[in-house]
Amino acid sequence: MAKVESFELDHTKVKAPYVRLIKVEKGPSGDEISNFDLRLVQPNQNAIPTAGLHTIEHLLAGLLRDRMDGVIDCSPFGCRTGFHLITWGTPSTTEVAKALKSSLEQIANDIKWEDVPGTTIESCGNYKDHSLFSAKEWSKLIVSQGISDDPFVRN
Amino acid sequence: MAKVESFELDHTKVKAPYVRLIKVEKGPSGDEISNFDLRLVQPNQNAIPTAGLHTIEHLLAGLLRDRMDGVIDCSPFGCRTGFHLITWGTPSTTEVAKALKSSLEQIANDIKWEDVPGTTIESCGNYKDHSLFSAKEWSKLIVSQGISDDPFVRN
Ligand SMILES: N[C@@H](CCSC[C@H]1O[C@@H](O)[C@H](O)[C@@H]1O)C(=O)O
Ligand SMILES: N[C@@H](CCSC[C@H]1O[C@@H](O)[C@H](O)[C@@H]1O)C(=O)O
Repeated sequence: MAKVESFELDHTKVKAPYVRLIKVEKGPSGDEISNFDLRLVQPNQNAIPTAGLHTIEHLLAGLLRDRMDGVIDCSPFGCRTGFHLITWGTPSTTEVAKALKSSLEQIANDIKWEDVPGTTIESCGNYKDHSLFSAKEWSKLIVSQGISDDPFVRN
Repeated sequence: MAKVESFELDHTKVKAPYVRLIKVEKGPSGDEISNFDLRLVQPNQNAIPTAGLHTIEHLLAGLLRDRMDGVIDCSPFGCRTGFHLITWGTPSTTEVAKALKSSLEQIANDIKWEDVPGTTIESCGNYKDHSLFSAKEWSKLIVSQGISDDPFVRN
């Protein structure tokens, strides 16, 4: 089976919350894309429950694009400890950490239910599995811990 | 807040399982990447529980790369009804549906626990939340329903 980089990371050595560059890939014409590990909670110690994670997903999709150019996709890890972020170009982990922190602050402090995109039976694949309360409480906790731009150094 | 295409899809109109092209994006130097919606279960009628979804994620990461060139990332939807697949170039939905079907067949029929990558405290962010039993049963069900290359047409 093809080897995947993410399973080579020693998850016992990292200190979440952090932003890590997984890799930069170059296309045949020379365009670059970056793949980041946005690790919100400490591996194997915690995991964000599905409803809160789902609401954070819908909000980050809009809020990160408001703050960064070239966002291709931001999707949760199956392990529910964070998200992949894929972008055009090569933003630094410092830039990404700043955009992530500010997005989570907006979730914690400003977002109201009416602001959450994709919460109806038409616009969502599982509209009954959302929790803005959970999204806000997790965002508050993550921001209070500081988001490092180095996976091995606590902020 | 920035608009996101996925929330514009009318989820009551699609017929899962299917593969849908969300969009093709072009980089400044002309490279193209494709973003697919791999919808495994019918929106708002079912959702894959976290342990099975997590094991399917780890397996698809390897199995799809064995079958397709240019895979950038395959990550679950927060709604747990399917996955994003992001690739270099512009494979057809027919090609992707074929690779997905064959990967799910391999999960259903051949994969053993020792084959699943990322199931230790070092290699996974939440190693206690895996179920190969669940991954196999969901894969069987999805394959038995047929995977369409058109979201609005049942296979
Ligand atoms: N990762 C995307 C945003 C979510 S799309 C997936 C969601 O749309 C809907 O199909 C489902 O509710 C699912 O949760 C992005 O960054 O554009
Ligand atoms: N989407 C990737 C494969 C999974 S990476 C994310 C996983 O690695 C580990 O960090 C966690 O267990 C998480 O579930 C890919 O397609 O390469």
